Amino acid sequence: MTDAGTPRGVWCAALTPLSPGGGIDTPRLAAHVKRLFAAGVDGIALFGTTGEGQSFALRERRAALDALLAAGIEPRRVLVGTGCAALPETIELTGHAVGCGCAGALVLPPFFFKEVSDDGVFASYARVVDGVGDDSLRVYLYHIPQVTGVPLSADVVARLAAAYPRVIAGIKDSSCDLGHEQAFLRRFPNLDIFVGFELHLPAAIAAGGVGTICGIANLYPRTLRRLFDARDDAARQGELARIGRLVALLDRHSLMPAFKAIQAALTADEGWLAVREPLVALDAAGRRALLDGLAATGLDAARDAAGPY
Amino acid sequence: MTDAGTPRGVWCAALTPLSPGGGIDTPRLAAHVKRLFAAGVDGIALFGTTGEGQSFALRERRAALDALLAAGIEPRRVLVGTGCAALPETIELTGHAVGCGCAGALVLPPFFFKEVSDDGVFASYARVVDGVGDDSLRVYLYHIPQVTGVPLSADVVARLAAAYPRVIAGIKDSSCDLGHEQAFLRRFPNLDIFVGFELHLPAAIAAGGVGTICGIANLYPRTLRRLFDARDDAARQGELARIGRLVALLDRHSLMPAFKAIQAALTADEGWLAVREPLVALDAAGRRALLDGLAATGLDAARDAAGPY
Repeated sequence: MTDAGTPRGVWCAALTPLSPGGGIDTPRLAAHVKRLFAAGVDGIALFGTTGEGQSFALRERRAALDALLAAGIEPRRVLVGTGCAALPETIELTGHAVGCGCAGALVLPPFFFKEVSDDGVFASYARVVDGVGDDSLRVYLYHIPQVTGVPLSADVVARLAAAYPRVIAGIKDSSCDLGHEQAFLRRFPNLDIFVGFELHLPAAIAAGGVGTICGIANLYPRTLRRLFDARDDAARQGELARIGRLVALLDRHSLMPAFKAIQAALTADEGWLAVREPLVALDAAGRRALLDGLAATGLDAARDAAGPY
Repeated sequence: MTDAGTPRGVWCAALTPLSPGGGIDTPRLAAHVKRLFAAGVDGIALFGTTGEGQSFALRERRAALDALLAAGIEPRRVLVGTGCAALPETIELTGHAVGCGCAGALVLPPFFFKEVSDDGVFASYARVVDGVGDDSLRVYLYHIPQVTGVPLSADVVARLAAAYPRVIAGIKDSSCDLGHEQAFLRRFPNLDIFVGFELHLPAAIAAGGVGTICGIANLYPRTLRRLFDARDDAARQGELARIGRLVALLDRHSLMPAFKAIQAALTADEGWLAVREPLVALDAAGRRALLDGLAATGLDAARDAAGPY
């Protein structure tokens, strides 16, 4: 299943910067991605949960991808989050990503209805694959039940992989549950499995995982790079300890606004603070508490971050 | 707040029929709505949860409303479910509904992210109202936390009603929690509150509610009409007993597929069975169990339903 050139390693679930008018700031997005690549990130996932993907209209999502590629970002280093509540829109965005030559589509199940049956999840993905109808499509199933309310069971993953052996390339497991990630890794050795939770990356690699698609790589890409590349357990534990302190700090705030507040501080650019509704930017007190806590993590902007813009 | 001609009474959360190709069957939808009106229903909510609204693309939702009005359905008898995960799309659909002269827009909060703050819910609705920017807009806040994962707190409703006293016309409370409905009714005597759960209609009216927007009105519109109009407690209890038996029966099945299976049986038209993914139509055994149970409810197709097409 894994060919040379397929996604692996450190992929960043890219934050989506906004312009003062509230739209996507595509020049800033392209600059951010270039800095991430220069800092050792292998690729990005555009419009994942960290990137507030579902908060942007279909036309905004198409236009931002077009702009990113026009700015020189290689499509083979881009996975595109294309899941919508309405499948015709998922099909349109997925077809667009394939047409652009992207590495693949990161596809949520339809996420409005809850208590969706396995048959319903299977039929939804089947509709997308059949609707796109392109042999070069590579789908990464996106499991993030704490947000969608629609878990992807191992049985439905197995059915999809059997029905579409070439198209279903992998899974992003954002359950943040190591037992769940390990069960997926054991059951699907032929799928490329990424973990969303940074702290589980070494255990996932040891169990056959191909890497991470994660949010902290926006802020500290060099740390994630070192963690992925580490061959020495002491070095690995040092990186995990620093990341662990950051995770504990982030847990005390609303996650995406906190990511953007740290990004604003690291780049000395308050333009990064803006989030789209229903998210709300941290207030001054929240930012202060977050940034005060940051110093104690041991992460260092000069050594670990992607650098100023 | 309540002017003559504003929505009240029995509103049907209309089912959305599909054509064999899987698109919205707008001629069948228009025929269904006309039969409902002939059977005494006051108005419809298009693209609510029962109507699988979030499963349809923006362009399908616009086109279906246009087709319904072109078929002669009066826009003042139509509330349009316009909530999307992405606010620019909610704004577009809401603006379209206002431009069509519809009675109002039934607006979900953005429903992808969970643990949304009150500030985030407020900012989302404010963005919609300001984005539409039309004084004739009437918004009905749609509270259905068991599906969206985003409850509308009483505090946020109060803030919205204070900030937009003319635009925020009412609430659809689909919590199915009588205590919650009564608390909203007590706190917001100036808002027009509809309940989604049929069995709570008499209690809600007694507490100042204006009516129901409900799914069972698709199947048994005359029963809902009699329940709303009843002035005699014995008659009311008889209707409630029959509806209660149907609710208990529906609880044993997936709700929207079960509604459509009953609709197919009542109209002798299997075209009604189709649902859009991620929902799945009932299988033959499920349909048989459902229809066997229907006889025991005491509801009668000849007396209670809207009749064949």
